[in-house]
Amino acid sequence: MLAARILDAARAEFAQHGSAGTTIRAVARAADVDPALVYHYFDSKDRLLDAATNPPQRWLENVAKTWTTPVPQLGAALLRMMLSAWTDDEIGPILRAVLQTAAHEVSTREKLRRVVEGQLMGVSQLGIDEEDRRRRSGLISSQIMGLAMMRYIWKIEPVASMSEDEIVAAVAPNLQRYVDGDLG
Amino acid sequence: MLAARILDAARAEFAQHGSAGTTIRAVARAADVDPALVYHYFDSKDRLLDAATNPPQRWLENVAKTWTTPVPQLGAALLRMMLSAWTDDEIGPILRAVLQTAAHEVSTREKLRRVVEGQLMGVSQLGIDEEDRRRRSGLISSQIMGLAMMRYIWKIEPVASMSEDEIVAAVAPNLQRYVDGDLG
Repeated sequence: MLAARILDAARAEFAQHGSAGTTIRAVARAADVDPALVYHYFDSKDRLLDAATNPPQRWLENVAKTWTTPVPQLGAALLRMMLSAWTDDEIGPILRAVLQTAAHEVSTREKLRRVVEGQLMGVSQLGIDEEDRRRRSGLISSQIMGLAMMRYIWKIEPVASMSEDEIVAAVAPNLQRYVDGDLG
Repeated sequence: MLAARILDAARAEFAQHGSAGTTIRAVARAADVDPALVYHYFDSKDRLLDAATNPPQRWLENVAKTWTTPVPQLGAALLRMMLSAWTDDEIGPILRAVLQTAAHEVSTREKLRRVVEGQLMGVSQLGIDEEDRRRRSGLISSQIMGLAMMRYIWKIEPVASMSEDEIVAAVAPNLQRYVDGDLG
């Protein structure tokens, strides 16, 4: 798939150089295709960035399904869902590109914010009211995102090489407190 | 201070464009100085990046001092230290630049790793042995870093606008579990 190969190359370029430091020509070179083909598929650099950082539908469906887990198991379920997403051959590189690009690209940061607020936080049945629900979801995201940065992007040891079971034993109870604990 | 003005401008440029997308000329323009002056103070782009992302000594001393807090209060003390660092006029912008630049700059990621491993994780008296100590420190960092990304870099609501006291009430008990709780 040429379009998929272009998107893979684009994710790597955007993550490393941001939109300002990335050219259609460099993406084409990395994907080993003619620049005209990149324009043919994606029209402009902005559209290419948008396509490259779109969360995959399959992952959004996983997220939505995970939120239907019974509340007492939700902390562990969310954590296991994220750990398997990051090690998924298709989803992992996209999540990585989104987080790396969001650090220095305002439009990707806006997209990340929409995804976190709408998908990660929007479908949960947490808390006693809307404000409480959004706080709990935001705090869950803060732990999951920080763990993902440490483990998969910055690769800081020993968190990067703990087993999934060790991570779940250590982190899931903290997520569970955000799900249904007393937050003061 | 001309050097400080150059460093401020460099932080903003590196954070947004990475090293590859940043030129000495652009930094000089942003700082409203002659490019020759940037070379005079910092010699090369690599040295400028290094200087711009060095954690301030005052902050490193705060961190080291905070780690001497009695263990039962350590979770809240670490959190309050980080919250005040991020809102500090001098330290906040540097932390922001380091986290944003580390997303796409390998050398800054290495520096972040060294700071986290050496300063944030290295001086604590946690756990039953060295491996346990490093895990606890790494997990504490994962929550603090994720909270910082959500609150100060991505600015995702409602975490971004919760008061410091609300953040401490919600998050400190989770940090305290990483300090001295049963991690499975």
